Amino acid sequence: MIHFADRLCAAVKTRGTALCVGLDPRWESLPEEIRSRHRGGTLAAAADAFEEFSSRVLDVVAPLVPVVKPQMAFFEMCGPAGFFALQRVLRKARDKGLLIVLDGKRNDIASTAAAYADAALSGVLVGGRQQRVWDADALTVSPYLGRDAVEPFLESARRDGRGVFVLVRTSNPGAGQFQDLVCAGRPIYQHVAEAVRGWAGENLGACGFGDVGAVVGATYPAEMATLRSMLPEVLFLVPGFGAQGGTAADIAAAFRADGMGAIVNSSRGILFPFKPEGPEWEAAVERATRETIAALAVK
Amino acid sequence: MIHFADRLCAAVKTRGTALCVGLDPRWESLPEEIRSRHRGGTLAAAADAFEEFSSRVLDVVAPLVPVVKPQMAFFEMCGPAGFFALQRVLRKARDKGLLIVLDGKRNDIASTAAAYADAALSGVLVGGRQQRVWDADALTVSPYLGRDAVEPFLESARRDGRGVFVLVRTSNPGAGQFQDLVCAGRPIYQHVAEAVRGWAGENLGACGFGDVGAVVGATYPAEMATLRSMLPEVLFLVPGFGAQGGTAADIAAAFRADGMGAIVNSSRGILFPFKPEGPEWEAAVERATRETIAALAVK
Repeated sequence: MIHFADRLCAAVKTRGTALCVGLDPRWESLPEEIRSRHRGGTLAAAADAFEEFSSRVLDVVAPLVPVVKPQMAFFEMCGPAGFFALQRVLRKARDKGLLIVLDGKRNDIASTAAAYADAALSGVLVGGRQQRVWDADALTVSPYLGRDAVEPFLESARRDGRGVFVLVRTSNPGAGQFQDLVCAGRPIYQHVAEAVRGWAGENLGACGFGDVGAVVGATYPAEMATLRSMLPEVLFLVPGFGAQGGTAADIAAAFRADGMGAIVNSSRGILFPFKPEGPEWEAAVERATRETIAALAVK
Repeated sequence: MIHFADRLCAAVKTRGTALCVGLDPRWESLPEEIRSRHRGGTLAAAADAFEEFSSRVLDVVAPLVPVVKPQMAFFEMCGPAGFFALQRVLRKARDKGLLIVLDGKRNDIASTAAAYADAALSGVLVGGRQQRVWDADALTVSPYLGRDAVEPFLESARRDGRGVFVLVRTSNPGAGQFQDLVCAGRPIYQHVAEAVRGWAGENLGACGFGDVGAVVGATYPAEMATLRSMLPEVLFLVPGFGAQGGTAADIAAAFRADGMGAIVNSSRGILFPFKPEGPEWEAAVERATRETIAALAVK
């Protein structure tokens, strides 16, 4: 069982980039050729379109990047059929050697949290055996409920060399409403960061990083620099690069001197660099991926 | 379009109780007669068992209580088949005239939050029409991301007279780790409560309550009393009654003088008052429901 952080660092080294491609299929942005083939007008047809698009994006990006981040919300939007689509997309990503950070921002207490965690990570015990549901390498989780609501995710992750990314500083404009409230001399997001530091330190990989990471938005470079110095052993998942406004300079602080320590997500900028009606959308996705990799390499 | 709070208050008056039955199916606690009929050992078989159990619980409780709270995590645990089961359980609850608070603790930013919200509440726009996915009356949401991550849920809810319950003070032992941190003279959960008060005040029903409620654990009676006086126009969803330790005295403060203003959830105490091998589990569920209603009536 190889430690999650070691698997992630090895994949980043192999591909030579920390770029993570977010899989956020949106009906109105899909290539017209896909929409027209799944125009039944039902949720199941939308799920089929999301699956075809995501699957073909995987074909394009799998040789180029180490990790993908499917967004559960867009698959849930299609109802139960959407979850079958998600499951097939996840299997394909895994078969192509990609690591998977499943973006669900799950959170709940005790055995309920364990149900989410086992589904996403180590598998669910049914009929006397551990059965994979989403089989992701890591899951995003939301911290408001506190320690005993996060720990079931860690337990499930550690049963099988998986990871957890805890929301610390999110990328949205209103992130500061609660995250910046100052308690005992520092903002809430730093209190959450301290908890993440403790969890990560419980189980470090050979690369020096723990199996509990932090979500830190590219749109808040000052906070990112503070967090990197507070959390030398914590992997960062950095959303908000590209379409949301974060630049390569903004995120330079996320990395350790050796270039490890963060994965940087781009969704819209890579998935939808084309007009829906235009030809050769996959070439545009490949070009956007290569350009984003190049932009990230300039630190 | 009738306001969510008015629908909820009317249902509570009609049934004469504020009891909400949590639908949290757990394989190891299911009646043996159900487990033995779905013993395939697959996730799909577990989903079938969860559906049969939940459906038969609905038959028992629908004449007695106004509202049920299905827990999405236990259905997600069964993979895509679990979501088909969930969808059928939700339809049955609706057909039986029950209100539904879907417990998903969803949270994300912008259009991603809207995807969760539309799935749960007003429906997803596909093929030119609004299509129902979960079709719940309300959804629980987690507040860490701040205002712009909660507002898409309100927008979806308000499109169709639905509601949202925001986690304010959760029932778990570790709830205080972040929720009790004191900023500007008061704990974080009260800052979240202030935001909820603002959202609720934007759209009040005839009953005097808004369509944005607060999750307030029965296990923290002092905090509950504080919150009730802070939030006179906010409906409370109160978990933690019964099996988690909250008593009728603990939750008395949740209600307005006329007995309105809160729904009190019990899951395990009502679902599993029997030994799995024992006979007549439905009679035990009915007895537990009636006893919980009686316990709640003693204020």
